[in-house]
Amino acid sequence: MGKKNRSKVSVIGAGFTGATTAFLTAQKELADVVLVDIPQLENPTKGKALDMLEASPVQGFDANVTGTSNYEDTAGSDIVVITAGIARKPGMSRDDLVTTNEKIMRSVTHEVVKYSPDCTIVVLTNPVDAMTYTVYKESGLPKERVIGQSGVLDSARFRTFVAQELNLSVKDITGFVLGGHGDDMVPLVRYSYAGGIPLQTLLPQERIDQIVERTRKGGGEIVSLLGNGSAYYAPAASLVEMIEAILKDQRRVLPAIAYLEGEYGYDGIFLGVPTIIGGNGLEKIIELELTDDEKIQLNRSAESVKNVMNVLSLT
Amino acid sequence: MGKKNRSKVSVIGAGFTGATTAFLTAQKELADVVLVDIPQLENPTKGKALDMLEASPVQGFDANVTGTSNYEDTAGSDIVVITAGIARKPGMSRDDLVTTNEKIMRSVTHEVVKYSPDCTIVVLTNPVDAMTYTVYKESGLPKERVIGQSGVLDSARFRTFVAQELNLSVKDITGFVLGGHGDDMVPLVRYSYAGGIPLQTLLPQERIDQIVERTRKGGGEIVSLLGNGSAYYAPAASLVEMIEAILKDQRRVLPAIAYLEGEYGYDGIFLGVPTIIGGNGLEKIIELELTDDEKIQLNRSAESVKNVMNVLSLT
Amino acid sequence: MGKKNRSKVSVIGAGFTGATTAFLTAQKELADVVLVDIPQLENPTKGKALDMLEASPVQGFDANVTGTSNYEDTAGSDIVVITAGIARKPGMSRDDLVTTNEKIMRSVTHEVVKYSPDCTIVVLTNPVDAMTYTVYKESGLPKERVIGQSGVLDSARFRTFVAQELNLSVKDITGFVLGGHGDDMVPLVRYSYAGGIPLQTLLPQERIDQIVERTRKGGGEIVSLLGNGSAYYAPAASLVEMIEAILKDQRRVLPAIAYLEGEYGYDGIFLGVPTIIGGNGLEKIIELELTDDEKIQLNRSAESVKNVMNVLSLT
Amino acid sequence: MGKKNRSKVSVIGAGFTGATTAFLTAQKELADVVLVDIPQLENPTKGKALDMLEASPVQGFDANVTGTSNYEDTAGSDIVVITAGIARKPGMSRDDLVTTNEKIMRSVTHEVVKYSPDCTIVVLTNPVDAMTYTVYKESGLPKERVIGQSGVLDSARFRTFVAQELNLSVKDITGFVLGGHGDDMVPLVRYSYAGGIPLQTLLPQERIDQIVERTRKGGGEIVSLLGNGSAYYAPAASLVEMIEAILKDQRRVLPAIAYLEGEYGYDGIFLGVPTIIGGNGLEKIIELELTDDEKIQLNRSAESVKNVMNVLSLT
Repeated sequence: MGKKNRSKVSVIGAGFTGATTAFLTAQKELADVVLVDIPQLENPTKGKALDMLEASPVQGFDANVTGTSNYEDTAGSDIVVITAGIARKPGMSRDDLVTTNEKIMRSVTHEVVKYSPDCTIVVLTNPVDAMTYTVYKESGLPKERVIGQSGVLDSARFRTFVAQELNLSVKDITGFVLGGHGDDMVPLVRYSYAGGIPLQTLLPQERIDQIVERTRKGGGEIVSLLGNGSAYYAPAASLVEMIEAILKDQRRVLPAIAYLEGEYGYDGIFLGVPTIIGGNGLEKIIELELTDDEKIQLNRSAESVKNVMNVLSLT
Repeated sequence: MGKKNRSKVSVIGAGFTGATTAFLTAQKELADVVLVDIPQLENPTKGKALDMLEASPVQGFDANVTGTSNYEDTAGSDIVVITAGIARKPGMSRDDLVTTNEKIMRSVTHEVVKYSPDCTIVVLTNPVDAMTYTVYKESGLPKERVIGQSGVLDSARFRTFVAQELNLSVKDITGFVLGGHGDDMVPLVRYSYAGGIPLQTLLPQERIDQIVERTRKGGGEIVSLLGNGSAYYAPAASLVEMIEAILKDQRRVLPAIAYLEGEYGYDGIFLGVPTIIGGNGLEKIIELELTDDEKIQLNRSAESVKNVMNVLSLT
Repeated sequence: MGKKNRSKVSVIGAGFTGATTAFLTAQKELADVVLVDIPQLENPTKGKALDMLEASPVQGFDANVTGTSNYEDTAGSDIVVITAGIARKPGMSRDDLVTTNEKIMRSVTHEVVKYSPDCTIVVLTNPVDAMTYTVYKESGLPKERVIGQSGVLDSARFRTFVAQELNLSVKDITGFVLGGHGDDMVPLVRYSYAGGIPLQTLLPQERIDQIVERTRKGGGEIVSLLGNGSAYYAPAASLVEMIEAILKDQRRVLPAIAYLEGEYGYDGIFLGVPTIIGGNGLEKIIELELTDDEKIQLNRSAESVKNVMNVLSLT
Repeated sequence: MGKKNRSKVSVIGAGFTGATTAFLTAQKELADVVLVDIPQLENPTKGKALDMLEASPVQGFDANVTGTSNYEDTAGSDIVVITAGIARKPGMSRDDLVTTNEKIMRSVTHEVVKYSPDCTIVVLTNPVDAMTYTVYKESGLPKERVIGQSGVLDSARFRTFVAQELNLSVKDITGFVLGGHGDDMVPLVRYSYAGGIPLQTLLPQERIDQIVERTRKGGGEIVSLLGNGSAYYAPAASLVEMIEAILKDQRRVLPAIAYLEGEYGYDGIFLGVPTIIGGNGLEKIIELELTDDEKIQLNRSAESVKNVMNVLSLT
């Protein structure tokens, strides 16, 4: 028979970001979705999936959403999103975080590729550059099929702040960041626009600097407001943008964490760079000419990544 | 100058259902959204709103979302959704729940109408029939402007289960319930269809009965799976369906909790009935001929409502 | 490499209905679209396709639309929609129409299956039952892969008239027709509802009869108003509903022209019946119990189809 | 009673562009739509409107679409789009075109403002700068309520060609044009990007020049392909982008034909410039620093406009 056409996306980790990613993916009818968490959380995972499914008649989407702790249910996924992992707790050293999440990545990846050997994996777990590297190594997938998310989210925040500042539609604000999350983010302000008009002609440098700084600390701002937990709407939306670009073969120009083999002067590390994302995954890395200052910042970002990678057991 | 066209929706209660309602409303560009919670939760409320807003460039919607504990910020709302209130905790008597939530409704409603005297209020807080009554009385609004939600959600669940059972698109399954939530729900199975084909010709009565029973206990099923907390995706989607019907003046035929003045033989109570919802709020109650069995069930439902109303201080 | 995910839809016949079908398909990002017409119309066909493509940045869809007269460009289509053919002109006998369009169907189908041997074909050309039969025979495709459109359009018109009459949202009006277009249409009024409420409880029979009669003559009403040409928005939207159901494997319950092998007591003809449409094409014919009157009407419809089939050269 | 919320858009001229604008507006549920043409075309206008309406149940939109030749039916419109007018025919002098369309604009505008004194008017009729001026003068509306369309369409074409050339998503291509249509278009190539990356770093200048040239002649390319008639999908989509920006108060940054009073050194003419379009219409003109070459081009464009304006009877 065999003309069935639904794509399949599995989301590993049914916390708020994972669950919201599952919902937004189903809501757009991009794919049937399997939400996965550990056996101890199987019931809550099933409960979230069922709740989403019960929204489908009202929101008008045809997509199956299921919760499970059994990786067999993810078999044949086109895309697997990894949000699993722990968040850094007070008193926990960065190395402990890395070591713990590395173990989780390896175990998750092992299961994922066993059942979906041809999937594309998108990684969100922090520290995301090193975790994407871990997934890449463990999976044995070609480099274009393992992608980390950070730049879509960072530029979404940047664009939000600019739109608010200028009181303009978010649809017309574009922004661009390189490098890692947070302090390691390298904002390409000269590649940021409102309706195509360079930001620097619309806002004083001082105000732009404040917005850049707020963007750098954008994750922390939400953590600090929430008091307990971290952002999930914007991270999930960012993941879904990447999922859609792949499933619809859109060839979007998106910042993403890619495996570099010489690009930008780095080799063998994952780093946030401008890419083209389409049906084959991360189809291309776009190499931009950087200013000296941007190079310095990107280098700092790359050093951070390497420092974290040194903690990994498999490097 | 004043040709500004954005509608405004305020959501009182920034828990999961309230927050998801805010997000889905903004995502559809139905209105700018103000998410409100108590002063002690002001920061988390602001954090959730900001996180949603940061998703807007990626999801491509233009709508402002703000968090606050100050009702002044809700001024001039077209619609106010009330999700505030406590959930019944183990050991708490039903009367204690009613008394506590009644107080919350009165205090919230007082603030709401002070700043939005022309709004339409949609109530979700449980026990929803009595709480809608409380809001109605406290607000002084005309009856078409105070509406309780329960039937959209109940039928969404029913439709989900039927779509799964028949392996058909949710788009083609319609269902209809009267009366209250849970055990008091009166499913009009004879008004339920797949692609217009009566359910009873597609499924054996026994299977339909099981689906009805599962729908009755649909909220409990999610609570029991989650272990901690209750459903919010489907409840929020149901609220948004009602919000959209009002803001776009769609004149949808939706089951809703309406103030009865003689309809179905009841007077002075709020009860779940078929209604037309449009730009003027609850524009009409549709009176259906009921079978004897349905009348008995609806009567039981009305008795439940009256029993709860007897606990209210203002009746 | 081959993970590319875009579906491909070819539309044969670049008249208004074909062009609008192409546009609505691309607009929903359902597939890349190839619009095909005869060599003499190659340039206008390319012009229409280019105009649609130039709307894509503003409407925000990623889908390629190309115009051609070369069937090679349709290679590998998932779905092929056939709108080609002539309309009946004043003074032309029905048999001449049938003979001419039969030739067109055979020639088009020959080219279509040469390049897309695994496609599903949806036929709109009139007289649609006989033309669908011609395509089926000529294509050699299994019966579930050759589907005629008429019922979705007829019920769309019926639903529109009911929504207007009751001043209700079209979203809540369902309707159902069997049999052929026009005078041969068999409306299942008892399976038509507003918000699940049977139409017959909401409107007097006389008014329903008028609406049925208007629906029967719905195509003619538009022809008569336009003066020159016939309807294309609603026909195109109806085709796109079927395309979407197949490409997204939605398993919609839709009336469609299906090849009957014993169902409803007919064998070896195409006739409008309730079906399930999904990823495998016309996945199932739903057999309803008909009233005596409906049986008589359906029989008349089947006789009409057979009379037209007798004119076909290949039966 | 009066809480009804539907916006109202009237489209004057029911040709292909007008009809497509009406359909796309209704399809997005932006407003109820009234399609207007001359009494001799009343029936075809009604036919087109009815055909669109009959697509609504299938496409799932709630919006009324009506056809008329009676301006009373446009009463209380929020936005009126003017597409009426004749196209230049072979052998017709430019001045004859101007004179004829000026008369049409004056007569149409007179009727429009009689019934919708508070509307915003968007003009498409060519030559669009002079026709927008005519409408402005005749209407007596404030300048922010009379806007001409040309730049959204021109940049849509430019973006399409760039997306094709680079094989990238149209979503990530931005472009910007000033001045008039066609040969008078002033493309701001330095403000054109793919994913925020300046076009000039992605394509050789020669290729960019070809794309600019193709954009300049974009309308003519379609006319020449169609053989008979001109583009309507992309023009209609462009109008709808402006309608949406106003009705949803989006404050989009869009190129539009605005009344200049000193901006860019011109006074008392309408010219294509970057603007902010929102709930109050054309809320702001953005003044960019131009290069000498751009100034020369813009000046040529302004001279063209003035030359056409000299033909107008009311200047």
